[in-house]
Order: sequence, then structure tokens, then C-alpha cells
Amino acid sequence: MINICVIKLKSGNFAKIFFMIRITLPDGSVREYEKGITGYSIAESISPRLAKEVLSITVNGEVWDITRPIDNDAKIVLHKFEDEEGQHAFWHTSAHILAEAIEAIFPGTKFGIGPTIENGFYYDIEMPEGQSLSEKDFAVINKKMLELCQQNNEVVRKDISKEEALAYFTTKGDEYKLELISELEDGTITLYSQGNFTDLCKGPHLPSTGHIKAIQILSLAGAYWRGDETRKQLTRVYGISFPKQKMLQEYLEMIEEAKKRDHRKIGKELELFHFSPKVGMGMALWLPRGTELRDRLEAWLTAELKKRNHEMVKTPHIGHVDLYKTSGHYEKYGKDSFQPIQTPAEGEAFMLKPMNCPHHVEIFKAKQYSYRDLPYRMAEFGTVYRYEQHGELHGLTRVRSFTQDDAHVFCRPDQVKDEFKSIIELIMFVYKSLGFKDYKAQISLRDPDDKTKYIGTDENWEKAEQAIQEAAHEMGLKPTIELGEAAFYGPKLDFIVKDALGRNWQLGTIQVDYNLPERFELEYKGADNLSHQPIMLHRAIFGSMERFVAVLIEHTAGKFPLWLTPDQVVLLPISEKFNDYAKKVLELLKNYDIRGKIDDRNEKIGRKIRDNELQRIPYLLVLGEKEEESGNVSVRKQGEGDIGNMSIEEFANFINDQIQKDFEK
Amino acid sequence: MINICVIKLKSGNFAKIFFMIRITLPDGSVREYEKGITGYSIAESISPRLAKEVLSITVNGEVWDITRPIDNDAKIVLHKFEDEEGQHAFWHTSAHILAEAIEAIFPGTKFGIGPTIENGFYYDIEMPEGQSLSEKDFAVINKKMLELCQQNNEVVRKDISKEEALAYFTTKGDEYKLELISELEDGTITLYSQGNFTDLCKGPHLPSTGHIKAIQILSLAGAYWRGDETRKQLTRVYGISFPKQKMLQEYLEMIEEAKKRDHRKIGKELELFHFSPKVGMGMALWLPRGTELRDRLEAWLTAELKKRNHEMVKTPHIGHVDLYKTSGHYEKYGKDSFQPIQTPAEGEAFMLKPMNCPHHVEIFKAKQYSYRDLPYRMAEFGTVYRYEQHGELHGLTRVRSFTQDDAHVFCRPDQVKDEFKSIIELIMFVYKSLGFKDYKAQISLRDPDDKTKYIGTDENWEKAEQAIQEAAHEMGLKPTIELGEAAFYGPKLDFIVKDALGRNWQLGTIQVDYNLPERFELEYKGADNLSHQPIMLHRAIFGSMERFVAVLIEHTAGKFPLWLTPDQVVLLPISEKFNDYAKKVLELLKNYDIRGKIDDRNEKIGRKIRDNELQRIPYLLVLGEKEEESGNVSVRKQGEGDIGNMSIEEFANFINDQIQKDFEK
Repeated sequence: MINICVIKLKSGNFAKIFFMIRITLPDGSVREYEKGITGYSIAESISPRLAKEVLSITVNGEVWDITRPIDNDAKIVLHKFEDEEGQHAFWHTSAHILAEAIEAIFPGTKFGIGPTIENGFYYDIEMPEGQSLSEKDFAVINKKMLELCQQNNEVVRKDISKEEALAYFTTKGDEYKLELISELEDGTITLYSQGNFTDLCKGPHLPSTGHIKAIQILSLAGAYWRGDETRKQLTRVYGISFPKQKMLQEYLEMIEEAKKRDHRKIGKELELFHFSPKVGMGMALWLPRGTELRDRLEAWLTAELKKRNHEMVKTPHIGHVDLYKTSGHYEKYGKDSFQPIQTPAEGEAFMLKPMNCPHHVEIFKAKQYSYRDLPYRMAEFGTVYRYEQHGELHGLTRVRSFTQDDAHVFCRPDQVKDEFKSIIELIMFVYKSLGFKDYKAQISLRDPDDKTKYIGTDENWEKAEQAIQEAAHEMGLKPTIELGEAAFYGPKLDFIVKDALGRNWQLGTIQVDYNLPERFELEYKGADNLSHQPIMLHRAIFGSMERFVAVLIEHTAGKFPLWLTPDQVVLLPISEKFNDYAKKVLELLKNYDIRGKIDDRNEKIGRKIRDNELQRIPYLLVLGEKEEESGNVSVRKQGEGDIGNMSIEEFANFINDQIQKDFEK
Repeated sequence: MINICVIKLKSGNFAKIFFMIRITLPDGSVREYEKGITGYSIAESISPRLAKEVLSITVNGEVWDITRPIDNDAKIVLHKFEDEEGQHAFWHTSAHILAEAIEAIFPGTKFGIGPTIENGFYYDIEMPEGQSLSEKDFAVINKKMLELCQQNNEVVRKDISKEEALAYFTTKGDEYKLELISELEDGTITLYSQGNFTDLCKGPHLPSTGHIKAIQILSLAGAYWRGDETRKQLTRVYGISFPKQKMLQEYLEMIEEAKKRDHRKIGKELELFHFSPKVGMGMALWLPRGTELRDRLEAWLTAELKKRNHEMVKTPHIGHVDLYKTSGHYEKYGKDSFQPIQTPAEGEAFMLKPMNCPHHVEIFKAKQYSYRDLPYRMAEFGTVYRYEQHGELHGLTRVRSFTQDDAHVFCRPDQVKDEFKSIIELIMFVYKSLGFKDYKAQISLRDPDDKTKYIGTDENWEKAEQAIQEAAHEMGLKPTIELGEAAFYGPKLDFIVKDALGRNWQLGTIQVDYNLPERFELEYKGADNLSHQPIMLHRAIFGSMERFVAVLIEHTAGKFPLWLTPDQVVLLPISEKFNDYAKKVLELLKNYDIRGKIDDRNEKIGRKIRDNELQRIPYLLVLGEKEEESGNVSVRKQGEGDIGNMSIEEFANFINDQIQKDFEK
């Protein structure tokens, strides 16, 4: 590396010349540094505190170690633990420490791959002949890992030849690494070493292990080498690590709470949905209470949509393959998805809808429009189908058939901003009504350096990108801007919602689309009497009903907002004698739009209370002799116990006030 | 035919012995007749009037000419024009008369087939070289047909050998008949002759042409010989005939009115639904107003179902093929329907649901039940798919994807009667609420002579058949009973509804099913603590939402009941100046749960009234200066004109009273 050049001046003296490079920061500002500067030094030049926190650096779109020298002008982004790229380096180094610890304790262990995942990392290992790993071993490995972190060993990157790499792992006897290397090209192979452990790895990594203050194994699982059932089953060791001990503590508490709130568990307890392998995995059967919940959500959103001048439509779940050839979806979802449905007639085949848009486009095309008829806002709870791999299915969050709260707005270019504002208003209203108070917006724009890969005119893109940003700003959002993250067919705005456990869910989205109007040759007659192409906006608020209900279950731990919950109240007659009084009370409550049910089982009142508490029914009304005589009810709040005796009218007002307050929060 | 035998008595005298046969009538009574008696003579023996009206006879399940001798004991049913079998003979003979008339006028015409259809008959013909048939020819053919009827020619049946048949049509030069004969077996071939015309025909026919008092060609169409596009296109001549001139008149008026009410025409005018060949034929796209209508129907029925303790569920539109192999639907719908959906995974294929039942069964199986938990009433607006041939598709009445208002009741054998009563009550309530006042019920029972072809125990069948009949009786229905019409899996009760044009539509159905509980091994724990198999009832009220909406459109001519119609009122500001007043009125009406829209187009008021009249919006409010000043509205009733000036409150009460009255009718 040459970053200084010494030259002889005319005067006969010598002078040092530093080769300088220009570093562009994310805010667009440019700083000059000597050639060979590292991410760490750049951070240090900005603030010592930043230098302490920075974990990796993106250099011209590629994530690097912060100790790797930069030799040319570059755009950079520095990453801390809060950033995905920072976490990636952090957990990647942690995976190597896990391997180092295991090798130290169980010499002869063979290593497969050790990547990072959404939360933490894992390493697939083959234990030495005759040995196996169990939870009993976790303590000693955890101790060893922490010791290796405290040693603050430097992590060193080394480019090596394929020959050297093969020689190293042959000596070590690591057949899995040899297999991986055999598939790599010479000149692209790097090793990373820390302490007594060296691994084949592309990086990036932390500069040293001391950044990791807390590290722990979470669980074990079996995993076939390279996901191939015909090959050896290895042991997958899952772990997590953090820069602070307190963060680990919080994380462990969170996953404990998340287990309790798992929507699959609560869904079963509350009898919301059911999966039957006979019907097909990844396709929910909505049980009566789940159907109630979903229907209520849909009815409520529908009413809000109608207030905002949306037109509801209904379209079939299948479409002719030609429709998807025109839309481009056939190509996109063709091979790896549900295959086309053949028919006895020749040349007629259908596809399960992967998207609702083409059907909505065909509805739009059924009429002629003038500029005065736009915007046309078309909405549907439309079901789509995607063939997810069996192993990737997960409760309601990863399914093969799901219903989008889909809408498409066909509008003029000058209407994009107002439509965005109106959709943002609706999304914010919906999230607030459902108790999601913490969310952020992210705007994805074109890559300003490569405008060629996008469809649509430059003028429209600029107008739309500006409109989205203005709309978000005027609605009080503080969106992050992601350059180059727009789809090829248009820019978008996504909503990322934080749940009660601090987990992020991408739910709402608003996308501009220049592609489908082009492919389907949509048009309207302008004020100039000429034909123009409308812009299409795609938007969803819940995203999918299945996924949203899952998020809502986990966010509320199954205690849904009072207005939404299937049963607001359960009536508990203390013996069969009071079943008739319960029926009377239920009828009276119906007059106040309060819904509920009677538990008239022949069980003790204690048992009835316990069972219905588990059902998360918000209010339990105990009905006995005293209540019947006075025409009152004894009210218990779920999870809180007795809150007193009320007349039926008092109770009804209490409930309806409560709902009012929930909406005003 | 020997029906008399003369024997010599001991006394030396001779005696005639008549061979007697026993004829069982539909009411179970038995009469003795001489061997060789005909249907006509049996009718005559019952009443001379009946003899005049009888057109065909069912003898041991086979429909015969009424002039054909009966030689053995038999169960018989006599058919008049009101019966399908009577109409069949009537129109079949009419088809031969059509052919005879055409042959007389256009000698050398070749004849294909001439069957009866739901209303009337047709004959496929090939006109002589160089000639063609057009509407101009109708009058002369009609005249000739009537003449042939008035001749009252006898229709004569003749059994002939294949050789004779081939010889006859070879001489005549009728290549189509020759092709048909070549496929028949010797010994099964009959000819029918009347006047100067002889046709290859299985019969049955009228005894003579004089029964036909009115006959007429309706239309022409092209039709490939044997439906094969590669073969010759023949001319299909449609006709109709009646035993009274007045009936023809009424029929022609009815089809004229039916054309005006065609749901495809009104559906387009009112923008209710749309078909796009690109999405796929036979699959409706529900436009906003149609969606409104359907959603309102569904929401209303759902509320009624909940009142009657039904549980709503939601199930996916596809299911694993194994599910349908278990249910038996794979076999039934396999070959001629939408083909299974293959997936990238091996051995995993799905089918579009042909029925909702298997999904509901899987929901039932998700829990354990005791006898106290039954009945379990599970309902869904569930969409199913059937691959109808392209040519058989017809608007919303014959589609490839339709949504059933489906419910399944899982109950104990002793609950069948009460469940039937409760479903009958609901069906009667629904039809009444929607203005269908004329309907009949038909109960289909086992064939008492062959009980082996049915699944389920004898005891359960007897109980169920009795329960259905008692239930129908107790609910005031006077059902017809069809023996042998039950499905193999259980008896059923169908509702046939007459629309405003007198056409019959089979809509509601309630079916007992012993088959699916058996195939899916359903069970509940009885009071005896043993495992029992529940009975499953299938039922639909609308049948399919698509078909029902079509019937409702044609029944009401698009003038839907006020409570159901998408827009109850349209506000017509007489100029732009009054658009704001219109908005205010609309908001006020919303407070009274009245829905409507504003026609704020820049058009003259006359044009606005005309256009909205065509939209069948029940009330039109004209808003001008006078109205705004007084805060009133000028009310017009669709199709009836001005009905006066009202305050908004008066108008709202008027509408809501109207709705109340509609329900009370």
C-alpha cells in the first residue's frame, strides 16, 4: 500500500506528498482523507464516541471491516449495533467465537457454516465421534465464549490462494470447509482469524472480540448439511450476543414473553384458527372466533374506506394465464410457485392469483374515463397465493394463501401527492385505532446514479418522488429515505410498526406503479381531449389479514381492543338456576350493541371464571341470587378481578365509554 | 299379442279367459286391466277428461307412448302437459312436425337431430344445396306446421331391423340419420311416422298431431353436426308449441319481458358485474354496485344466521388432493374439471374446491364433541369451482366460480327434525323478505324397491325420511314426494321458487348426509359414553350468490327491495349552485341510515332524471332554489314521477316506513 510518495524538489530538498481520497458521507458532505484510511479512522475523525461504536462500514455499496484500508474515492456509511449491517458484523464475529469455544472444549469438532440470522447467529457443527452436545454443555461453552471476548483478541483478515486454503483445512481435517472451498474461485478466498481459531469467511467482522460484552447459546437443532436430506445431519447451535449485558437480559426476557404471546399458541387457546395437514399446510382454517375477529376488522376498515370514497369490488381467486403473461406475473411467479391449472379445453389454463392488481386493472378497463373521473379508488380484501417452501411456513405469518387489504388508486400525475396524503392519514388512523403507537416510515427512491433501470418518464418519477416526500412531511412523518430501493416500476413508502415487544413488522405500503398502466395500456381522456396514461398506486394497510392478525395477537397477547374482540363479555350464572337470568341479561346487553355469550356449563363458578379468564374475555359477569333480585350484575375485569356491582345500564355505559376512550387515546 | 284365451269347460261349453294385469297407480292403489291395455285406456277408465289431457305414460320407470300396449303388471304414472314427461312427448312430436313442414316446403332438406329442450324443441337441418333459411321463411313454415297439426295425423311407432332402417334412409338420402343408425344395435331401432314424414326416433310421442293447437318457430342458430367444429355446420331451428293458443301468447309475452329483464343486460346497465375474457370466461368481476348488493345480502343473511346460532367460518379456496380423495370429490370432479395444481414439492398437489364440505369437516374434526355440544351449525359464503364448458356459460346463472351460502349442521339422529324445521323457517323467512312469494318444496326419498344402493343404516334413513316429512308438514309446506330421487348419501328437501315471470328456479336445498361422516370418521361421545357418528346436513338458501343475484335481477327487473338496493336515493341539484346543498342533504340522510349519491354532473335536470331512472334508483330528490330555501327536498319515485315536497326528516321517515312495510308484507 502506497499512500506517501517522496519527491525531490528543484531546490534539492525532499518533500512528502500524501495521496488524498474523497470520502462522501450519507448526508452528501465530502471529506478528504489520506489514501488507505480505515472506517475506524474516519469515525474517529468525526467523533471519538462514534469510533467506539462503529462496527462495520459500507464502501460503495459493499460492507467492509472497519479496519480495512480504503484506497479510492468512495461513498461510505458507518454502521453501529443499531444498524442491520453493524449487527451482522457483530453476530458474525460472535459465530466465530462460538466455534472457537466449541473447538477448545471439544477438540476434533468439524465445522459447517456459521451465518447470522435475524436475531443472533448459529453454527452447524459435527461433534467428534461418539460425543454429542446437550443443554448441560451450555454453561461451560458460555463461560469459554465470554473469556474469549474478554481477551479482546484482534480479528485478522487474510486473502489467500485456493491452494493454501485447501492445504490449511486438509491439515485441520475439516471436510465441510474443503467442500465449500472447492466451489470457490481462486482470488476470492479470505480467512479470518481470532485467538486460536481460523475460519473460511467473506467477512466483514469486528476489529476485535472485546466489543462483545454478553454472549450466550440459545438452543440446539438438527440440520442437514446444505439442507440436503440425503447428507449428514449436523448440530445447529443457535446463539445471541450484545454489546451490553443489560441488552442480553432484555432480549432473554423478550423472547420469554414472545413465547407466551406466540400467536400459534394463543390462536389455539382462543380457538381463532386451525391448520389441517389434510387441507394443506400454510392455509388457515378460520374458526368461528377468528372469523368474527377478521370480519370485524374487515367491516371496520371497509366503513373507513367508504367514508374516503373507495369503491369495493370482488374478483375471482384465479385468472387466465394470459392475464399474468400481460402483467408479467407469470414470469415472476411461474416456476417456483403453484403451477397453472389445466382444463379439459385446449389452450385454457388458469393461475391462482399471485396478486390482485391485474383483476383490478381489468375492472378499470371495463369503462372509459375522463380526467374528471379520476382518482378511481378500488379496494378489495383479495386473496392471493404464493408457494412457500414447507419448512418456511410459520403460523399465520408465513402462509401459502393470504388475504390482502388491497387497494389500487388510478389517478393523474398531479393527484399523486393528495392521494399519498389521504392514504397516509388512513394508515395512521388505523394503526392508532388498533393500539400501534410506534411506527416509522421509509421512502424508497430511484438510484440517482442509474436511472436507466426504471420504467416511466423522468418527469413523472421526479414529480412522484417529490410528491411522496412532501406528502410524508406534511402528514408529520419523519421518513427515512432509501436511495436505489424503489422497485423498477415506481417509488414507494413503507410503514414499519413496532409491537409491544419492540419487534418491527413491515405492514403498510404505498407504491407508485408506471408498469401495469403501460402493460395494460390504460388511459383516460385529459382536459386537452387527448388520451393519457393514468398512474396506478398500490397500497395495503394491514398487509395481509393473516399476518396482521398474528401481529395483533402478539402485540396484545390476545387481549384485543374492546371494540374488536369477538366476545366483549361472558355471563357466568353461578348455577343452572340462573341460566334464564343470564339469557335475559344477554338480550338486554344486545340493545346496547354489546356482544357476549353465556357459560352455562354445569361447572363451579371458580372453574368458569378461570376458563373464561384464559379465553381473554375482557369482562366476566357473575350472576347469582343477589344479582337476579336486584337486576344487577357483578363485574370482573379479565386479569384484574372484581370491579363491583352495576345495573345493566351502568355496565353498558361503562363498556361503551371504555370503547370511546380507546378510540380517543 | 294374446290377451284372450278360449278354453273348453267340462260342461262342454267354451269360455273366454281374459289375461289380466295389475296396474299400480302413483298413490299406491292397484287396478286390474286386461293385458294389452294402453295408457290412454287407463286414463279413460279413470276419467274422460284425464284421457283428453294425458300425453305420455311412465311404465316401470320408462316413458312410453300412451297408445303402446302394456302386457305385464306395472307401476305407472300418467303425464299431462304440466309434467315434464308430458311436455317432452308434446315437444318431441312438435319437432317432427317442424321437420315434416320443412321437408314439404324445402324438399331435399337433410335432417340431423331434433330433441326437446327446457322450453320447446329444435331440429338441426341441412338445407338443400344453394338454399338457406331465414326469418322471412318463418311465416310459411308456421302456417304449414299448424296445418299438419289440424290434420290430426296419427303418430305411428314401428320397430324395425337395422338393415331396414339403413335401407330406408339410404333411399331417402339422409346421411346424418345413416350415421346415427350405424351406431345403434339391431333390435333397438324404432321409427315414428306421422302424415308424410318418418323419423328415426326412440319416442315417446303424442298419439296424434291434433293435440298441438299452437306451434311456432322462434329462432335460428348455427350448430356443428354432433357439436364437432371439424364437421359440417347445420342450421338449428328453434320452435315452441302449446295445447292452447293462449298459452303461446303468454309464452311469447313472457320471453319478450324476460329479454328486457335479462340479468346480463340489467347487470351492465346498473354496472353490477362484468366479465373479462382476459380474467377468464364464467368468472364474474363484481363492480362496486354489485359488490354493495352482494355484501348487503351476505351481511343480512349472516346476521340472521347468527341469531339462529350458526358459527361463521372462513376456509381457503383450495385443498390438498388427498382431502378430495378421502371425500370422494376427486373421483367425481377429477377428469372433466379444473385439473390439480402441481407444486415444486413432490407429491403435493392441490385442487380448487369443488365443494366446501371437506373443509368444514376438517374444522369439525379440530375438536372433540359430546352429545351436549351438538348440533354444531357451521356457515360460510364459500367459493367453489366447476369447469363448465365454454358454450354452456351464461351470465351469472352458469359460471365457473361461484359462492355458495353454504352451511353444514353436525347433529345427532334425534335432532334431524328440529334442524330441518329451523332451516325451513329460515328459508321461508329469506324468500319472503326478498319478495319471492311463490315456491314449492320437493322431498326426495330412497327408492323403496332398491334400498341397497344407499349408504347409512336402514334405521337412520327411516328416521330421517320421517323427520323431513314431519318437519315440512309442521312448517306448513305441502311438499311433493319423489321416490328414488334421494342421493346415495341421504334424503333431501329442495325449494323451487317461481319468479315474477313464472319461471321456476331450484334455489334452496337441505340434504342429509351419512357419507362424509363415514368417510372422515366423524364422532361424538354419546350419553352412553360411547362413540357415535354424527349426521351431517348440507344446506343452502340462495344456492349460489351469483345465480341468486341473477334471479333477483330478473325477478325484480333490477328494482331491488328498498332495504337492499345499492343506492336508495340520488340527489339531483338542478345546477352547480346547489351541489353544496346536495352534500348537506346527503350527510343528513346518513344520520337516518339512508344511503345515496349525488349526480353533480354538469347536465340539465331532465337528463339527470332520465339517466338515474335508468339506473333504477328508487327515489330521486330534485334540489333547487326553492328546496334550499325551505330546507326541503322534491321527491320523485322511480318510474312514477313526482310525489311531492318533504322536509328531510319527513322523507327519511317515509323511506324507513317503506322498508318496514316491505318486511312486513
